[in-house]
Amino acid sequence: MPGGSSIDKDLGLKMTVHLDGMASASTADTNTTESTDTVSVPHPVNVTGKDTRHRNHGNRVKFHVTPVSEEEHELNNRVPSRPTPELKFELDDEGDTLSNHNSITALLSSKFRDIQKRLKQYGIESPRFRKRLVSKWESLNYDVCENVLYIKEQEKYKSKKWVTLRWLSKWLVMFSIGIMTALLAATIHFVVEKLAHLKFDLIKHYFDDCAKNNCLYQPALMWMGINLVITVAGAALVTFLQPMAAGSGIPYIKSYLNGVKIPGLLTFRAFVAKTLGVVMSILGGLACGKEGPMAHSGSIIAAGLGRGRINFCNGKSISFYSAFRNDHEIRDFMAGGAASGVSSAFGAPIGGTLFSLEEAASFWNQDLTWRVFFSSMVACFATNFLISAINGDPTKLTDPGLVRFNAFKFDLKFDLIEIPVFIFMAVIGGLSGALFVVMNYKLTVFRKRYLNKNWIKIIEAGLVAMVSAAVAFGLMVGINDCTDKAPFDSHAVTAAVYCTDKKHNSLSTLFLTTPEGCLKALLHDPFESHGPVSLVAFVLIFFLLGVWTYGLSVSSGVFIPSLAIGAAWGRLVGIGVAHLMPENPNLGVNSSLIKQLDVGKFALIGAACQLGGILRTTISLTVIIVECTDDISFGLPIMIVLMISKWVGDFITTGLYDMNVEVMGIPTLPFECPPLCDDLRASDVMSHPLATFKTKEKVENIYRMLKEETFCGFPVIEDDPMAPGKGKLKGLILRNQLLVLLKKKIFCPEGQVPPRNITIKDFRDFYPVYLKVSEIDLSDEEKSYVMDLKPYYNPSPYTVEQKFSLPRVFNLFRGLGLRHLIVTDEKNMPMGMVTRKDLAKFRVGSKRGLVKIEQLKIEDK
Amino acid sequence: MPGGSSIDKDLGLKMTVHLDGMASASTADTNTTESTDTVSVPHPVNVTGKDTRHRNHGNRVKFHVTPVSEEEHELNNRVPSRPTPELKFELDDEGDTLSNHNSITALLSSKFRDIQKRLKQYGIESPRFRKRLVSKWESLNYDVCENVLYIKEQEKYKSKKWVTLRWLSKWLVMFSIGIMTALLAATIHFVVEKLAHLKFDLIKHYFDDCAKNNCLYQPALMWMGINLVITVAGAALVTFLQPMAAGSGIPYIKSYLNGVKIPGLLTFRAFVAKTLGVVMSILGGLACGKEGPMAHSGSIIAAGLGRGRINFCNGKSISFYSAFRNDHEIRDFMAGGAASGVSSAFGAPIGGTLFSLEEAASFWNQDLTWRVFFSSMVACFATNFLISAINGDPTKLTDPGLVRFNAFKFDLKFDLIEIPVFIFMAVIGGLSGALFVVMNYKLTVFRKRYLNKNWIKIIEAGLVAMVSAAVAFGLMVGINDCTDKAPFDSHAVTAAVYCTDKKHNSLSTLFLTTPEGCLKALLHDPFESHGPVSLVAFVLIFFLLGVWTYGLSVSSGVFIPSLAIGAAWGRLVGIGVAHLMPENPNLGVNSSLIKQLDVGKFALIGAACQLGGILRTTISLTVIIVECTDDISFGLPIMIVLMISKWVGDFITTGLYDMNVEVMGIPTLPFECPPLCDDLRASDVMSHPLATFKTKEKVENIYRMLKEETFCGFPVIEDDPMAPGKGKLKGLILRNQLLVLLKKKIFCPEGQVPPRNITIKDFRDFYPVYLKVSEIDLSDEEKSYVMDLKPYYNPSPYTVEQKFSLPRVFNLFRGLGLRHLIVTDEKNMPMGMVTRKDLAKFRVGSKRGLVKIEQLKIEDK
Repeated sequence: MPGGSSIDKDLGLKMTVHLDGMASASTADTNTTESTDTVSVPHPVNVTGKDTRHRNHGNRVKFHVTPVSEEEHELNNRVPSRPTPELKFELDDEGDTLSNHNSITALLSSKFRDIQKRLKQYGIESPRFRKRLVSKWESLNYDVCENVLYIKEQEKYKSKKWVTLRWLSKWLVMFSIGIMTALLAATIHFVVEKLAHLKFDLIKHYFDDCAKNNCLYQPALMWMGINLVITVAGAALVTFLQPMAAGSGIPYIKSYLNGVKIPGLLTFRAFVAKTLGVVMSILGGLACGKEGPMAHSGSIIAAGLGRGRINFCNGKSISFYSAFRNDHEIRDFMAGGAASGVSSAFGAPIGGTLFSLEEAASFWNQDLTWRVFFSSMVACFATNFLISAINGDPTKLTDPGLVRFNAFKFDLKFDLIEIPVFIFMAVIGGLSGALFVVMNYKLTVFRKRYLNKNWIKIIEAGLVAMVSAAVAFGLMVGINDCTDKAPFDSHAVTAAVYCTDKKHNSLSTLFLTTPEGCLKALLHDPFESHGPVSLVAFVLIFFLLGVWTYGLSVSSGVFIPSLAIGAAWGRLVGIGVAHLMPENPNLGVNSSLIKQLDVGKFALIGAACQLGGILRTTISLTVIIVECTDDISFGLPIMIVLMISKWVGDFITTGLYDMNVEVMGIPTLPFECPPLCDDLRASDVMSHPLATFKTKEKVENIYRMLKEETFCGFPVIEDDPMAPGKGKLKGLILRNQLLVLLKKKIFCPEGQVPPRNITIKDFRDFYPVYLKVSEIDLSDEEKSYVMDLKPYYNPSPYTVEQKFSLPRVFNLFRGLGLRHLIVTDEKNMPMGMVTRKDLAKFRVGSKRGLVKIEQLKIEDK
Repeated sequence: MPGGSSIDKDLGLKMTVHLDGMASASTADTNTTESTDTVSVPHPVNVTGKDTRHRNHGNRVKFHVTPVSEEEHELNNRVPSRPTPELKFELDDEGDTLSNHNSITALLSSKFRDIQKRLKQYGIESPRFRKRLVSKWESLNYDVCENVLYIKEQEKYKSKKWVTLRWLSKWLVMFSIGIMTALLAATIHFVVEKLAHLKFDLIKHYFDDCAKNNCLYQPALMWMGINLVITVAGAALVTFLQPMAAGSGIPYIKSYLNGVKIPGLLTFRAFVAKTLGVVMSILGGLACGKEGPMAHSGSIIAAGLGRGRINFCNGKSISFYSAFRNDHEIRDFMAGGAASGVSSAFGAPIGGTLFSLEEAASFWNQDLTWRVFFSSMVACFATNFLISAINGDPTKLTDPGLVRFNAFKFDLKFDLIEIPVFIFMAVIGGLSGALFVVMNYKLTVFRKRYLNKNWIKIIEAGLVAMVSAAVAFGLMVGINDCTDKAPFDSHAVTAAVYCTDKKHNSLSTLFLTTPEGCLKALLHDPFESHGPVSLVAFVLIFFLLGVWTYGLSVSSGVFIPSLAIGAAWGRLVGIGVAHLMPENPNLGVNSSLIKQLDVGKFALIGAACQLGGILRTTISLTVIIVECTDDISFGLPIMIVLMISKWVGDFITTGLYDMNVEVMGIPTLPFECPPLCDDLRASDVMSHPLATFKTKEKVENIYRMLKEETFCGFPVIEDDPMAPGKGKLKGLILRNQLLVLLKKKIFCPEGQVPPRNITIKDFRDFYPVYLKVSEIDLSDEEKSYVMDLKPYYNPSPYTVEQKFSLPRVFNLFRGLGLRHLIVTDEKNMPMGMVTRKDLAKFRVGSKRGLVKIEQLKIEDK
């Protein structure tokens, strides 16, 4: 080998390989270099400590199998039926709990790690919930299985009529998604606004009466009671009907779009729990919004319309059509649904489209983009129409979304000298956002450990609702900040409490309203409406309530509370700036109006900073905020603060949604392979040994394999009588397909012509909840039959050779949205399989100035 | 074969296979099915007429090579050195000249084809310029070559310092791109505005004087003379310095982002020709804008900064750094440059980002997106700052781009009942846009045929400039529409001509200004400023001038003329609507203002419709227009009309840019594989036979192969002494690499240790203009030496098996941005290569209700 210089490589991994009994041939082969031309004799492997394999970079690790004798083949043939050896990789950087996807900021953040560690000392000693992967999450099958059944179905679509019909129906479904999402949004908006006003009117009435009669305990108790009852009902709904409906759902939606199957996410139960739940959460007085859940609701609508079937709770279902029942189409529709949801929530059709597409980026194509954009646009337009209609004039079209910041009386102008102030605010936003995430993380860990019973979850939700009311009551009475400025719009119920002279309690305009009304008040109320003391108290309380509320077992969004917290301290900054700046005598009577505009401007910037700090805005979130503001020239400072607050926050922790995803152990794939993985080869990351089938396989073998193994895909190999179990790769068959084939009994005694009475529709009927092995009932005679897999397996699965580097494997996987990638040797025989989790487990880290790759442990749970 | 039912397939292709002499084994093998286990004996093939190969779908076409004897190997070994057999696929749908990428609209448009055909009858009988591919366009190498040199370089980046430095420098380059693009934009803006005002002041002076003294021929001749001189200078600059600088450059930029190498596009010469040229074009009075060229200029700045080297015209160059000199990094930077250009032209940072990313969609990742967004934002902000500074107050920041529609005095409101009018306008926009494209297409064909000499091109440009002036003069004098309404802003020079009583000629506000000023006038001038007669005349004239101007050998954009045409007829519609609607007595004095707002609104919608009809807006263009309007609630109707005008236009022709790309024969890849290609296999589309090298190859062979073949990539195969020329695939080496290796004389006599004195930097020094074979000088002794390719080839190129279906090959190619995809047989021996052109040649068509796939001929040119 004159070409390759031999380089020793320390992979920096503490590797513990547990192989009970006899190791498989293929595991042992990983250590074989090109120079040895025979398979090394299988022997038990037990390596602990640093793995210092010698790797030859000129030639790469090679797997050479010279023509193998029959004995060897028989030896190797036992492998497929054996359980996977448990490969455990432990992290060598134990103290490093809070890290992030973004490789570069991870590198820059080592100094900030100390702060984290110190923070951690005061926290509860928690198990490692961050940086984990849980094995239960499966990938979606975005790849089309081009078997004979599929090709046959495609024949139908050769005619123009069919192509046109299919195309039209896709657009029609997208249109329906937009319309239905808008209907839902408008209904929720209407119900919440009406009922919330009723509730707060009642409380105000008692407030104003009792302030004179010294019976203030009455409204306090009433407030707490109403909150408790409604919130407990909402929490019970979510907890018992579908726990996946808890929270905003956005982390799950993002994971789904990234390609992870989330069971229960898109069911009718989730829809009911989500929509009714969010109404109850807001009426229950929790610090949450109804915007985040709209993305989830829209997605469920899209999935339901795409499947053309409604599953009811009693197990029954109505089926309309089945043409789109596969992961590929459903995911495309879901992108439209999520976009519609965001669009109708924020009146941001472009932002909504980007929201859907940035996670599903590998699958972006212009046709899909147009459809998503269309449904997003329809949703925005219909929401606008419906809300305008509710407000009395359906043709005015001035409310494109549920929440808008666009009520500034004049154009927002900013001066270049204000930019440093904005940057300062962005830094505050980033830091406080990180604090929010850290606190919520601690709480999440605590909840996972101690509050994991259903009834405790419900009680906690009720407790939060009561505390929210009690604290609001306490502040209103305690601070007793009186103002005579009428609040902006009629968003709030104003209560006088102890105020006289037609003045009212200024905090009542923040608390006796929905969180959205509160946000509007902070953005648009007159300059004098809210004093500094009220604002400071509000920020502190709302921050803590926000942390406590997010993660409760209720349907709730975190957009609005984040924005409200930011708007409150932004208003504080605005008041400060207004006091520092000399009064301009030329302005005269307009001075008050200009001040109002100025505090509104700072409140808006503060809101953006806080949102950026908590959620770590992506492009889509930036666009959403800019669209919400409805003023593109003011978009520039908003973009700047969003980027800066994201950077500052990223130095300390990941964003709230990413934290959620990591705590759940969902294996989302980042956009690029972590750097410096060039050393790793496909053979290093693949799962092996494999469970394989022959093209004609005994039913008993299939049944046993499905029962014993958890694999979701099985390579099909050539049935070579000379070398059983070691044939060339013929294709890939999925667990789901095998289960349907077994259920439909597509097998026959050996030698007979196999039955063919199955179509692609039979497979679709089971989508998306496929069968379980336990539902298959086979007689002993049937078990001796043979199944011909040829018409069903995917004859051209994507494969790579074992020497492929990890970045290339990663690009292939991410770029094509794969679920299974088969690793073959030079003779085209399957050696192992790369799945999403094999790639997601690599995270970048750094230690003592050197960048390192860590491997996460995949947990069974 | 019990599984596979044999299905006869008519591929619908007239296939003419010219194989002179003896055919290669691999060509013949394509017809071999699995049932035959030996290679069919090679024989001359000459198939003409319908190809009715029997294809077995159960088993797919297989390529089985049983252990081959030495004689056979020797036979096959002659293949690589033979020239590629010329495979000619002729189209079976000759009359179908104007079609489009969008497969579905192509299907729906058959009825509209008749219109086209009739249109064609009145046109010049032209050669088939549409639907063609020219072989000269090569792909970019987006894929990283992971050879030993690369791996060695990566070692350096293991340290945190290096990673941080590289990361920071990428952001810094993006920042510089934004700043420099903004500087350029502001400079061009300043120069054009000042000089144009001087020019029109001069003409106005003579106009006003001569109207009284009957010497109007003086201003007419002066106008024509000025236009002629300046335009001829601009045209000469573009034609002789760099013809790639002609037009807006956007079709080329889009193609480059799609992955096609466009020689000369990103050179310093192109930059000079583009920037000076666009100034001259506008001063020369052509109907063109300076916005489109900004995207091109921004891209050149980005490429220059990325390469860290400036090449001067005299062949000298200054080099600063070389770390980013590969197609991958340059393309990423260029995305930032194009985005910055669009952003500073339109003040649309989101639209600019989308513009860059939608073509390069397969390579979207969040990190790159943020960087592109950042540079786009910086460009917008800096442009804003600079233009505000030019206008006197640098901190006001009210001009984020060169052209904005945002000067509407009040919020644009629209009523639901106006939507049908908007839709009607969108249909008009789509139809007239298609007419624009068809006319320009005819003209382009005519130019390619008859006006292909440099001096003719320059004369034509001068002629257009003179005619523009003459026609404008004629209209102003002929129509003599007088108004006393002061024009909006001070965008125009108002000439009285024959008007008295302090009135001025209303057309002078449209013609004595830059095209942008003209657009502003149409959007914002008072209701009474422009009469219907003037507008009708203006629309007709500007439409024809626009058609004539686009495609001249000058640097010019088509955005502004499209918008101006649309705004003019939109204004006409607005006037019509205002006359039809009953006067609202309640409005009183405001009535005139409301009318102004109303015609402005219709003008805006008209502009959007016309742009959509001509360019066929993508998502990015929609966002650009919405951002330009600076009013998101009015974004909805704009989106609707853009979509409808696109659909209407797509029924008839492709958009203007796509037409350009097709006329040039650039092989851009659509977002998805054309439908119904499932039947085609990788072996059907690949180019073969291949030219391959052994891992240790004689210098003479390499030199000869490079000289004789035009391939850009060569598979490297195992040096198997038992079967020469038929080894397993080891890797892929590029022509560029081989040329550098030959130039640097990295070879030695056989048996000696090969020299290693070459680093990855040596390869980069030649980027992007690599060597030509003719520049290599080898002695006869050197030719007998041996080159060891092992350290240089890419050891893990992407490969597929021959039975892979076309959609899967397509996804792989598009998803990963490949240049070469090697097709292998089951034994991992290379059979052929799929390149961009092999995929781009498939277009969808339909005939008699059946959807069909057509194959384009690849032309040498």
